[in-house]
Amino acid sequence: MKEDSKTTIQELKERLKKFRDDRDWKQFHDPKNLAEAISIEAGELQELFLWKDKEKIIKELKEDEEFRKEVGKELADIIIFCLNFANATDIDVATIVKDKITKGDNKYPVEKAKGTATKYNKL
Amino acid sequence: MKEDSKTTIQELKERLKKFRDDRDWKQFHDPKNLAEAISIEAGELQELFLWKDKEKIIKELKEDEEFRKEVGKELADIIIFCLNFANATDIDVATIVKDKITKGDNKYPVEKAKGTATKYNKL
Amino acid sequence: MKEDSKTTIQELKERLKKFRDDRDWKQFHDPKNLAEAISIEAGELQELFLWKDKEKIIKELKEDEEFRKEVGKELADIIIFCLNFANATDIDVATIVKDKITKGDNKYPVEKAKGTATKYNKL
Amino acid sequence: MKEDSKTTIQELKERLKKFRDDRDWKQFHDPKNLAEAISIEAGELQELFLWKDKEKIIKELKEDEEFRKEVGKELADIIIFCLNFANATDIDVATIVKDKITKGDNKYPVEKAKGTATKYNKL
Repeated sequence: MKEDSKTTIQELKERLKKFRDDRDWKQFHDPKNLAEAISIEAGELQELFLWKDKEKIIKELKEDEEFRKEVGKELADIIIFCLNFANATDIDVATIVKDKITKGDNKYPVEKAKGTATKYNKL
Repeated sequence: MKEDSKTTIQELKERLKKFRDDRDWKQFHDPKNLAEAISIEAGELQELFLWKDKEKIIKELKEDEEFRKEVGKELADIIIFCLNFANATDIDVATIVKDKITKGDNKYPVEKAKGTATKYNKL
Repeated sequence: MKEDSKTTIQELKERLKKFRDDRDWKQFHDPKNLAEAISIEAGELQELFLWKDKEKIIKELKEDEEFRKEVGKELADIIIFCLNFANATDIDVATIVKDKITKGDNKYPVEKAKGTATKYNKL
Repeated sequence: MKEDSKTTIQELKERLKKFRDDRDWKQFHDPKNLAEAISIEAGELQELFLWKDKEKIIKELKEDEEFRKEVGKELADIIIFCLNFANATDIDVATIVKDKITKGDNKYPVEKAKGTATKYNKL
């Protein structure tokens, strides 16, 4: 957990902005295409788990270093496109995430939501 | 961009871990379900752009504050599930993202990739 | 199974073409938007199963008529956009499906693929 | 359009059922995994269109036979998993599609919906 503790979101956003601008790729990074890219990469992460039940996946993630790396790569792709999206639309990631957590606190009060996956509108 | 500059990835991960554990939701946060959740939320972001071309989307994001907020909420949901996924699998986000950028530097050398969306294996 | 036995794919395609043209929606039905629509609807089907394991889903599908209807509606949405896509691109669905089955017969020979979910390139 | 005119949905479903049972794959075809498979394949279709605008896609589909075949294969994969899903859950495809069209007629009355992509609840 070392890197996550010292890396700000802005730092990753800056690196990705540089990567994009070095290649003159801003022209491709419109919100519609980036949302597609996020969805495509989310599919690729799912593909690693297809036909497997959750116990098998958890076991493989523990024991198979190669598999673990593959999963990490697909997760990275999704996050990278999310940050590219935030760069393209000038959205502050920490603000929207913290806002959502605050809203989640109201929608899912601890005493009602504890231990149940029921959606907030049916709690 | 204020929050992103001072918020580490670990800080968001900690907040989400607390949110999860306060509700005893760790039992639901297995990798298979979380990958599904990421994909579902990616679909919801896309839905905001459906039937619209990219110019219209960019214009709406600039002029329509309500739309902009909706987009931010959906992006937040995707990122939140990515961070929940990283928590559940004990993956260091900054490490995998930086690794991917390094690999991208090799796969897409600036002189070859500049201004083209061609995939690396066809460059 | 009564309707499926007497309904050709062309019949459904014709109905959807009429629905589209009555509303002058051909202008929106380009391949990029329709592919997005398919993906969005696939996410909505998945959402009905989120946080549930497969045994629970199978049980609910048997016992909960309301849930079964919801699932049918989401499946219908995906298929409808697939057929709209076929209409927009002038693709013959039965031909491409039969071709894929023939190719699947070669990629997954019965003696090798029996009882295993292993991908063809690792069989 | 020859094949679609003479092929019933049931015929495709039967072929896919045989393909599945010859390989003893019914055990993998539960609704949760099949919904994932649909979503993954939807992502693969989208990937063929990523970074391209709709005019370019339409042009390529007309002029590039290889590209057209790739698109057909990905569409086929989605439809195949939809039909596998219908087989696994004993859902009659023609019934749910026709029901949806009837509902669409009510939700999107021609006089209101003509030429606009506005969602029914905002018409």
